[in-house]
Amino acid sequence: METFKIPNNYEDVVRRVRIFFSGCKDKIVIVTSGGTAVNLEKNAVRFLDNFSTGCRGSRSAENFLRSGYHVIFLYRRGSLLPFAREFPSGEEILKFFDTRGDRENVLLHLSKDNKLAQAITEYRRFKDKLLLVDFVTLDDYAYFLYGSCQTVKSVEEKLMIYSAAAVSDFYVPFNKLPEHKISSSQALQLDLEVAPKLLKYLTESWVPHSFVVSFKLETNEKILTEKAESSLKKYGQSVVVANALQTKHCKVVIITSQVNHKIELSPEQQSQGYELEALVVQYLSELHCKFLDLNLK
Amino acid sequence: METFKIPNNYEDVVRRVRIFFSGCKDKIVIVTSGGTAVNLEKNAVRFLDNFSTGCRGSRSAENFLRSGYHVIFLYRRGSLLPFAREFPSGEEILKFFDTRGDRENVLLHLSKDNKLAQAITEYRRFKDKLLLVDFVTLDDYAYFLYGSCQTVKSVEEKLMIYSAAAVSDFYVPFNKLPEHKISSSQALQLDLEVAPKLLKYLTESWVPHSFVVSFKLETNEKILTEKAESSLKKYGQSVVVANALQTKHCKVVIITSQVNHKIELSPEQQSQGYELEALVVQYLSELHCKFLDLNLK
Repeated sequence: METFKIPNNYEDVVRRVRIFFSGCKDKIVIVTSGGTAVNLEKNAVRFLDNFSTGCRGSRSAENFLRSGYHVIFLYRRGSLLPFAREFPSGEEILKFFDTRGDRENVLLHLSKDNKLAQAITEYRRFKDKLLLVDFVTLDDYAYFLYGSCQTVKSVEEKLMIYSAAAVSDFYVPFNKLPEHKISSSQALQLDLEVAPKLLKYLTESWVPHSFVVSFKLETNEKILTEKAESSLKKYGQSVVVANALQTKHCKVVIITSQVNHKIELSPEQQSQGYELEALVVQYLSELHCKFLDLNLK
Repeated sequence: METFKIPNNYEDVVRRVRIFFSGCKDKIVIVTSGGTAVNLEKNAVRFLDNFSTGCRGSRSAENFLRSGYHVIFLYRRGSLLPFAREFPSGEEILKFFDTRGDRENVLLHLSKDNKLAQAITEYRRFKDKLLLVDFVTLDDYAYFLYGSCQTVKSVEEKLMIYSAAAVSDFYVPFNKLPEHKISSSQALQLDLEVAPKLLKYLTESWVPHSFVVSFKLETNEKILTEKAESSLKKYGQSVVVANALQTKHCKVVIITSQVNHKIELSPEQQSQGYELEALVVQYLSELHCKFLDLNLK
């Protein structure tokens, strides 16, 4: 952790997690979501990033809330949020509104499926069980995950880590970053080091008794299962959710030391708007229950 | 341009620009906004990026509309949009709404300053003079800028290019990108080439008779003016707007071959919510008028 830069608001985030946690009696999950940015300059203008909209994480967080979990949602600023993901964005949001009404209120025209009203209602219902913590860089991410784990460590056994964020594999340690913007007059050779494996910290040191779920994404489907199984052996997490970039919204394989379970949406289910995450979260909640039963025996 | 990948929707974008342009009799400006992503893999998971919220570009676009321009807004998907930038984002948008009302309408509670209602009203007023074109990668950006210039070239003299986007200085040519996700088991040396200077294409080939405004951002204020003046000599644009990262929302220097004009907000103006872009756009519109007068003589 000493090669990361401690975020300015670290203490503030830990305080928020502590307050949230004090009101929590049930199962708790830390859902991580979105991509981490890796700065290439201290006064950062340029950075390395991973494509990730936060779709998987935000959908999953909603389903964990529906399944009775308290959710700490650790997300990349600007990526999709539970419930808020239903809102139109960009120009769509402007087209969506009408300014009829008095000076204090503006009428919002809903689309006929009424998804927005449902999202707002659900948000209201669950908002006390949902804590949003945003990050931008890999440094923020590492520290906020560490701080959250430390804070809830007393119920480590009831904790699930659902690590859906696209965490950078490479980085430049803070002490090796150039101070100012890199000059652009000539070609640039960037030396990136392999980033510390936070998954290893989680399973070996931070919360070794928690139920840790990691994701493995590959663009080459052929090497996917092999990579996922090798990750399981290497890091000792409870579950790897394996998915290929091209089919990630309709198919995943849940891999544990005992099972290799495929979850897939049929074309009919897809066209009806079913979301894969509902099935994944349901399956993982059941696995987590069994894990808890075993631990309590 | 041959080292860039042509976007799948290129023809579609050019068609939209053509339709927009056919209804345009006035001065026209292409405002570019947000950062460009540079892919590091063909099946892209990882990319290089520049921090840019699109604040400068979106504010400026609004002011160009108010000054009578038609605006083609070429922006990074997900960055701030004219008028829509006033909307709350993230969790704030959920807290903002109430679900009272009937099934078809939901009441939106406005903050007291009523900025949102004003934004919606202004959007309505100007929407036919505003074309939004979104990009993600440097390839998209280069092609959409090229296509837009080609389409409006017949009124080249009336065209302003306001290049507020944070365009990557480095890239990997498409034919040199690896097919699949880079393996993360060992340190990575990235060889980045200097990206083609689109500014040079603009001033020398695409629209040599247009009024081209570029931006120079540095983190080291000492070398800023020098860098801006050297850019002016090198690329022959009409104007460079020089700004330092730390003070960019309260101070810029407008540099042309004739003038070196500072525009600055006082602390009082800043606290009253004045936006620097209103002054910058006003000053540039006047310069553009003089430029047109000279050209027409």
